[in-house]
Amino acid sequence: MSGTVYLVGAGPGAVDLLTLRAARILAQADVVLHDALVSPEVLALAGEARLYNVGKRANRPSVDQRFTCRLMVRLAARYNVIVRLKGGDPNLFGRATEEIAACRAAGVPVVSVPGVTAAFAAASALGASLTARGVARSVTFVTPSKAQGGVENTHWAEAAATAETAVIYMGALQADAVASALIARGVPAQRPVALVENASSANERIVRGALSELAALALQLGDGPAIMVIGEAMAEVRASIAEADAA
Amino acid sequence: MSGTVYLVGAGPGAVDLLTLRAARILAQADVVLHDALVSPEVLALAGEARLYNVGKRANRPSVDQRFTCRLMVRLAARYNVIVRLKGGDPNLFGRATEEIAACRAAGVPVVSVPGVTAAFAAASALGASLTARGVARSVTFVTPSKAQGGVENTHWAEAAATAETAVIYMGALQADAVASALIARGVPAQRPVALVENASSANERIVRGALSELAALALQLGDGPAIMVIGEAMAEVRASIAEADAA
Repeated sequence: MSGTVYLVGAGPGAVDLLTLRAARILAQADVVLHDALVSPEVLALAGEARLYNVGKRANRPSVDQRFTCRLMVRLAARYNVIVRLKGGDPNLFGRATEEIAACRAAGVPVVSVPGVTAAFAAASALGASLTARGVARSVTFVTPSKAQGGVENTHWAEAAATAETAVIYMGALQADAVASALIARGVPAQRPVALVENASSANERIVRGALSELAALALQLGDGPAIMVIGEAMAEVRASIAEADAA
Repeated sequence: MSGTVYLVGAGPGAVDLLTLRAARILAQADVVLHDALVSPEVLALAGEARLYNVGKRANRPSVDQRFTCRLMVRLAARYNVIVRLKGGDPNLFGRATEEIAACRAAGVPVVSVPGVTAAFAAASALGASLTARGVARSVTFVTPSKAQGGVENTHWAEAAATAETAVIYMGALQADAVASALIARGVPAQRPVALVENASSANERIVRGALSELAALALQLGDGPAIMVIGEAMAEVRASIAEADAA
């Protein structure tokens, strides 16, 4: 006998951007293992469930991934509904692979519940589509990697430079390196960018400019999670309005 | 005086994958302009609102985009809450740019409500993360373009070939061309692929294989909307389990 582990997307921040399914499963949870960035309002949906903060944050002490995996499996022996609550969608930049593998290896049923990722909340906040007919038919989500073992993996930069719209997760602290890497790969320095911090939350903040200014724009943000969107689509609504006005 | 247009993400299919906010706004809607693929269960959330089907489907007669834009603006003069309900997230492959521009040009307030895109429902159905540490730090969403005016835009293929995980929207009918374009750009023919039709719905169907088999796999699907996911991350859970077992 084992409980079930639910990898649940908590959405981008605002409590009403959880899915109906996520809210229902949270209300049934016996225990919740949550990321650091999940808000108290979202956690309140879990009622009397026991809460564990297993979050990671840039440049702060964090919980070891293996510890989180072992804890999930151990709790599944004692409880029926174990929720692993992740910011955004659980299967994008969330270490779901390790957690799914740990559950399966232990014979624990594991189910994912998709969520709204921060990029979509950012697009809504910006009032701009990530794609636009004739302008952007590809959107790439990347997170910049740090050098490991002395060798830097630059594949993320290739992918971001090739996409018509690039969305950079967890990259605001490296904004200077991101802009340099993209410009070095031929992305125009004047390409429009928009940065959204705490997308969909009460303390949401938006700054806009050009790729060449990315580092300066990132410095205008606080220390909340930020999304950087790079692409002509970020200028498109303005251009379309000009067209509509001219017609 | 004008009503407000809400561009609302209806999510991937299952009614409980709408966000709490989307469900609330639908319940308040006076009128709903919806895509062809939005299910009756989702539309039922709109209660007594007047419904307009303005959907487009591949290879079928479809409503002109300019008609939809004009209709939204005209309805905003008569109603308070106008919902433009789109499959998935409204700002990904959804012509939001044109609709936002039309509203703004007419002085109609327009607000986006983000949603769960089909790729995330597909990843949940597959029990596999779209990203994986050491395997995939970039995910690209593309839709293949058709030749227009005799000139084919192949940027989508460059973007998909460069990403570690590529998600192809609205491409199952062109699966042969997609596979050829990626293999021609150096993507290994043996790269794992997973196709998910009607992700999250009762008639969801999954097929898996290698990139070289993409066209044959697509033929196993019906005529529902399908997502094609291409990347080593699709093999990762299995590999991780093997590692965990060996440890």
